[in-house]
Amino acid sequence: MSDALKLGLAGVGTVGSGLLRLLAARKAELAARAGRPIEVVAYSARSRQKKRDANLTGLRFVQDPVALAQDPAIDVFVELIGGEGGVAKVAVEAALSAGKHVVTANKALLAHHGASLAALAEKNQVALNFEGAVAGGIPVVKVMRESLQGNAISRVYGILNGTCNYILTLMEQEGRSFADVLKEAQAQGYAEADPTFDIGGFDTAHKLSLLTSLAFGTRTSFQSVYVEGIEQITPADIEAAGDLGYRIKLLGVALRTDSGIEQRVHPTMVPKHTAIAEVDGVKNCVAIDGDFVGDVMLIGAGAGGGPTASSVTSDLIDIARGLVQVALGHDP
Amino acid sequence: MSDALKLGLAGVGTVGSGLLRLLAARKAELAARAGRPIEVVAYSARSRQKKRDANLTGLRFVQDPVALAQDPAIDVFVELIGGEGGVAKVAVEAALSAGKHVVTANKALLAHHGASLAALAEKNQVALNFEGAVAGGIPVVKVMRESLQGNAISRVYGILNGTCNYILTLMEQEGRSFADVLKEAQAQGYAEADPTFDIGGFDTAHKLSLLTSLAFGTRTSFQSVYVEGIEQITPADIEAAGDLGYRIKLLGVALRTDSGIEQRVHPTMVPKHTAIAEVDGVKNCVAIDGDFVGDVMLIGAGAGGGPTASSVTSDLIDIARGLVQVALGHDP
Repeated sequence: MSDALKLGLAGVGTVGSGLLRLLAARKAELAARAGRPIEVVAYSARSRQKKRDANLTGLRFVQDPVALAQDPAIDVFVELIGGEGGVAKVAVEAALSAGKHVVTANKALLAHHGASLAALAEKNQVALNFEGAVAGGIPVVKVMRESLQGNAISRVYGILNGTCNYILTLMEQEGRSFADVLKEAQAQGYAEADPTFDIGGFDTAHKLSLLTSLAFGTRTSFQSVYVEGIEQITPADIEAAGDLGYRIKLLGVALRTDSGIEQRVHPTMVPKHTAIAEVDGVKNCVAIDGDFVGDVMLIGAGAGGGPTASSVTSDLIDIARGLVQVALGHDP
Repeated sequence: MSDALKLGLAGVGTVGSGLLRLLAARKAELAARAGRPIEVVAYSARSRQKKRDANLTGLRFVQDPVALAQDPAIDVFVELIGGEGGVAKVAVEAALSAGKHVVTANKALLAHHGASLAALAEKNQVALNFEGAVAGGIPVVKVMRESLQGNAISRVYGILNGTCNYILTLMEQEGRSFADVLKEAQAQGYAEADPTFDIGGFDTAHKLSLLTSLAFGTRTSFQSVYVEGIEQITPADIEAAGDLGYRIKLLGVALRTDSGIEQRVHPTMVPKHTAIAEVDGVKNCVAIDGDFVGDVMLIGAGAGGGPTASSVTSDLIDIARGLVQVALGHDP
């Protein structure tokens, strides 16, 4: 068996802990499938002391994620810090420039800087993989960049934010107000203390801009996404939609039009008695319309440590097997 | 750019014609993505004269598919003849033995002979790819063998036969009898003149045995699938299920139990107001339960020239890029 693929893990929150658990639980199977062991050798985290549901014993701690990104002992920099700029961006740039492969679940970073990071990866002949950045455990990146590559894609859309879908589902099922359900979601950990990013549609827009780039080969352009959130939805809206045979979902939609690529995020009435109308709670879905395949829809967990770790692992195995492709649109 | 990947195409029916149209329509994009052109150089077909919705101009005709399988001019043998034994089996064995990669959409062949064919492919270090053999355009093979490989799979199930789903959907929506709807489906080309293979559940069982092998790493074992079809379903059954809040679907289900792998095909009551209950008409779906990812469901066209050609193309691109892995369980 070949040398191990050595990982530097930046960020040991929900997803980072999930990844450590997965790599430990499936160690032998992953080595067999990847053709070589996959091992975390060093990590960085804001707090070294924090109690975590993962075993960090024997892993070297590196205070500075940027130093970790350039560490000579690692082959792959796994960025699970999050945030559109700041240290995540600096560290990913440092890793790519140092010739390290990068696996990230950071949708905000890629939505804002995907084109320049993809160009940097291409220049350094390394991977920039991000299956975990769109719709958590749903394997939509690989499906779009590999399985459906025989197709011209005309449209991609989906329910891309579990917080919004959870709130809308509860509002409908229990006839409660937005503010009331939001408060409960915050108490249960399904919504952040400052929920603007989710309920305002911005998280959906980040993911949509990555799907757009995959579907149409364009550079990510978060700035050109029309964004409207769910804050204004009332129980009366939901009831009126229901009377007409529809359910309200927050959708991200990208399609090819005569005047170019259109990207938009807004509450949408979807017909009842369709699969997408039944994607409820924190679940996500992505639908892709291709000229040969027709309509394909993927449904699954859009967030969470386990599902996102599943996606990150798929990216890691591809790298271990030597599959290096830069999927996001970028300048040559 | 590297040398073209040269295909020998055996069978120019609905799927073969769809593949020829796709390869022509997306020629430049496919060459770019695969890193080399993908070209059909020769074909075999029962009738050379038959009118087809595809351009065969300039392609060398080879009368005997077995001769085509061994033709020195081809790199990949694309088997779209169908049938569990006979010439398809002989030709695929000949191709693998001659060191040719094989791409097939033939579920019957693989359900019955998958283990020995996979062993032959492994021995000759060539690919045996079959994305088109399970659920047409739904990219479930690649999702299971690559995207979800970080997971231990506990269960895989789905609606795997469009003919049955179409019949059950019409019976429910229009309150009509099985015999009546079957006759209409035959007239519209959604069911064969001899429909036993579909309505008896055998086609579903073929596909299920491939999914089982992918999920659990076991050898395909069609013989151990419990099979029950939809012939006995009456409008009264459907109505009674509906009154209880369920819809009747023909499911293929494989799961890990304490006493081994269980595989079964039978009409099943699925709760209304779920995505699977809304998979209607000729659509298919596959659901996979993994320990980290949770439940993932894929929905799409389960048959047809375009969707299946989309899957065959995905297999071809993997081969063009040098990704050779034998996915089906087999003896070492």
